Amino acid sequence: MKIEELLAYAKSKGFFWPTAEIYGGASGLFDYGHLGTLLKRRFENLWISFFIDPNEDYHLIEGATMLPEKALIASGHTTRFNDVSVGCTKCQTYFRADKLLSDRGIAISEGATAKEIGESLRKNGIKCPKCGGVLGEPKAFNMMMDVALGPERKEKGYLRPETAQSAYLNFFQEYNTLRKTLPFGLAIIGRAYRNEISPRQGLYRMRELVQAELQIFFDPEGWKPESGKLMERTINVVTYSDKKAQQISAAGLSEKYSIPAFYAYHMALMDSFYTDILGVPKERFRFLEKGGDEKAFYNKVHMDLEVDIESWGGFNEVGGLHYRGDYDLQSHSKGSNQDLSVISDGKKIIPSVLELSFGVDRNIWMLLDMFYTKEQERSILKIPKFLAPYQIAVFPLQKDEKINEVAERIRKELSGKFKVVSDSAGSIGRRYARMDDVGTPYCITVDFDTIEKSTEGYNSVTVRDRDDKTQKRVDLEELSNFFETAFSAPPRPKE
Amino acid sequence: MKIEELLAYAKSKGFFWPTAEIYGGASGLFDYGHLGTLLKRRFENLWISFFIDPNEDYHLIEGATMLPEKALIASGHTTRFNDVSVGCTKCQTYFRADKLLSDRGIAISEGATAKEIGESLRKNGIKCPKCGGVLGEPKAFNMMMDVALGPERKEKGYLRPETAQSAYLNFFQEYNTLRKTLPFGLAIIGRAYRNEISPRQGLYRMRELVQAELQIFFDPEGWKPESGKLMERTINVVTYSDKKAQQISAAGLSEKYSIPAFYAYHMALMDSFYTDILGVPKERFRFLEKGGDEKAFYNKVHMDLEVDIESWGGFNEVGGLHYRGDYDLQSHSKGSNQDLSVISDGKKIIPSVLELSFGVDRNIWMLLDMFYTKEQERSILKIPKFLAPYQIAVFPLQKDEKINEVAERIRKELSGKFKVVSDSAGSIGRRYARMDDVGTPYCITVDFDTIEKSTEGYNSVTVRDRDDKTQKRVDLEELSNFFETAFSAPPRPKE
Repeated sequence: MKIEELLAYAKSKGFFWPTAEIYGGASGLFDYGHLGTLLKRRFENLWISFFIDPNEDYHLIEGATMLPEKALIASGHTTRFNDVSVGCTKCQTYFRADKLLSDRGIAISEGATAKEIGESLRKNGIKCPKCGGVLGEPKAFNMMMDVALGPERKEKGYLRPETAQSAYLNFFQEYNTLRKTLPFGLAIIGRAYRNEISPRQGLYRMRELVQAELQIFFDPEGWKPESGKLMERTINVVTYSDKKAQQISAAGLSEKYSIPAFYAYHMALMDSFYTDILGVPKERFRFLEKGGDEKAFYNKVHMDLEVDIESWGGFNEVGGLHYRGDYDLQSHSKGSNQDLSVISDGKKIIPSVLELSFGVDRNIWMLLDMFYTKEQERSILKIPKFLAPYQIAVFPLQKDEKINEVAERIRKELSGKFKVVSDSAGSIGRRYARMDDVGTPYCITVDFDTIEKSTEGYNSVTVRDRDDKTQKRVDLEELSNFFETAFSAPPRPKE
Repeated sequence: MKIEELLAYAKSKGFFWPTAEIYGGASGLFDYGHLGTLLKRRFENLWISFFIDPNEDYHLIEGATMLPEKALIASGHTTRFNDVSVGCTKCQTYFRADKLLSDRGIAISEGATAKEIGESLRKNGIKCPKCGGVLGEPKAFNMMMDVALGPERKEKGYLRPETAQSAYLNFFQEYNTLRKTLPFGLAIIGRAYRNEISPRQGLYRMRELVQAELQIFFDPEGWKPESGKLMERTINVVTYSDKKAQQISAAGLSEKYSIPAFYAYHMALMDSFYTDILGVPKERFRFLEKGGDEKAFYNKVHMDLEVDIESWGGFNEVGGLHYRGDYDLQSHSKGSNQDLSVISDGKKIIPSVLELSFGVDRNIWMLLDMFYTKEQERSILKIPKFLAPYQIAVFPLQKDEKINEVAERIRKELSGKFKVVSDSAGSIGRRYARMDDVGTPYCITVDFDTIEKSTEGYNSVTVRDRDDKTQKRVDLEELSNFFETAFSAPPRPKE
């Protein structure tokens, strides 16, 4: 699928579309419709149940999206959270200057200054991609969005550029309220804001995005290497030092490349989330290690999570695993003049952070791209069943009062536990097609047999499976159990 | 409880506290900790299952929190979403000018101009409440927070002042994607932003708040009066025309005060949500009708939902029910030059809107205020069981390897369905007290009987009830069913 095709599909079915589209839309902003919201919530709940719930010392919290300036001075964002922008002197269109180079295969480090990028643009004779005009001088551009609070709008703040900051700011309070043991995790699913110079590729580069992030605070000396099954798991990784794309076990990677075992363990866990749970084919999920200028200076180990996405033209970032060291808590300790150290194994330390970061919007896009398929005449969103927005459709076979009544009763009974939709318009074949198109895993048909066959008035229905198109009769009494089994997510792998 | 007491309780247990508190906090911004987040999510999910899920034509959506300027010019917010602020000439503290009057019992209409308020302040000789200094001239102050987007920060936008706008902007797209029938509902749970002059009272007046709002789009001529049991429900209401506090049936109110039946029906539904489901005593929940200058000009009927909250000193607003007419879609039709009309009963109309609005943060505060109680030596958060943040605590009776192993096994087995926490520190009595203090409804004690009595190695545990302190033995095999029943919310009342 191309980007435009996916956008058209997403809009026409009710997944997402540009914000305020009746006013022509707003660059880099998207709203989720009824199906998109169902899908997004399922993804988020799955993420919580996979990464957070199994660990008693990991907790979900929520923070305000606005933060006072002081906190973002301390974190370094006011000075370092920059992109380099360049405008066309002719058509006044602005571009991310480094992208103009990298899109043409010209290497440029992530930390390059505006001046360096400008020199490379000139050296390579790059013109405005839109009108061919001469480009101006590139400028560093802080991507945070500022807000002015208070009765005289004198209290400066920013919309947070990453949910992580809310977790760091709350670490000390939560740690001391809870067990006071490391590792200790704080997770946030929430909005972050970045004034992207050139938002694009649907849900890829957005100005308002949703992140699902887990910050694990730990003592590097005290987090013992994990062992067991997960460490034996083979993962796809492109290592930085030798630029080598390889399949290697987590344990092997840790040993060969001196990557901490706790880090490799979480790579295996993330691989399981994508390949076992979300159903991404193994060869389409990989880690891309960043090093040198490409990684944030405070990261000790930095890997992007990449999925091979057709509409984005290959492997693209959907998340990251970042061993951030103790930079974050050290910075806030200094900035706030508060001692944020804790006692671990009898010594006073500022905990280090391992960050598991996921772009929720990107993952939603990825799921549609990955699972929307055409099979002969059929269009099917073959998404894992437990992620499907609508779970069950109920069809009265024909216009008949008794059939309608029973269908409505079934819909209501199942609605407490499942997302059920009814459809009585058109032929059964067309109704199946509509449900396939949005990934509804099961369609129930209520027919004359349903109301006639049993002594209580009705007994069984036809249940049709989205993927193999099989139809089977299921007793009404068995329906709820049948679906409960059908919609359970696979378990997290054994450690 | 006083505000400061509730804030201290909320912070010490992990419910909420000021954002970026290590930097001294930020006025009007709060973060939710692990317990607050659990409670907030339960409240939100309950709200969805009560107000949205039962209706096939009501849908949950999500919108970006930033909106382009055009949309908020059209909605009237850039010109009308004002408060009047007044600063002290001596200490430079700012106040909401109308509050300085109303706090002293001096009547002032909600629509009063800065000039009118200034005159009243002078006439009544009101000085700065903080230092006694002379107040300056009151000024109208737009409460929206603006953001500047794009590479030159030239694209002006605002953080949305209410989630409602996202629903109005998406109405046409969603209506046409779905069944094209009225009434049609779009619900949003999300953040809204208001630059309050003087944030206060904990989660009451915040600069960033979470709203749960349902916008029902309908044809005033086509929405037939509801009848049935809900219309017979008695509700507490203070009517505007006669300033009368009364208990009256929804049907009676509709008839006597010419309030549309669909409006009265939703009052009964909201009353049920607060009194049947959330457990607010009937006499502590009421509707306060606004009229004249007090209500927004576009509202045809406007009632605040009020709960009698000790820390806020009496009845205070936790939500609202607003019959907004067709103002919203008319405004966006004009502003966007798009025809947003639909066909209803063969005629072309711009739908009217009934808005059910809830301040999530205020409701969370209300729940803590309402249900945190002291009984002799005990402090108990006697919140409805299905809303409790932690649902089950598992206690190994004593330090014993076998007991610990079984306790951990029980915790893991129940964790898939329930929020389970374990606690092995201190006496059982102290552990009960800790759990009572945060409202955990059930504590399971694993003892020697648990591991010794049965042939499979273990069989039953003690389950202790938070409210009546009874303890009973429950078979391990029965535990899951026992809790499933215990945590089910009461059903929505029969229509």
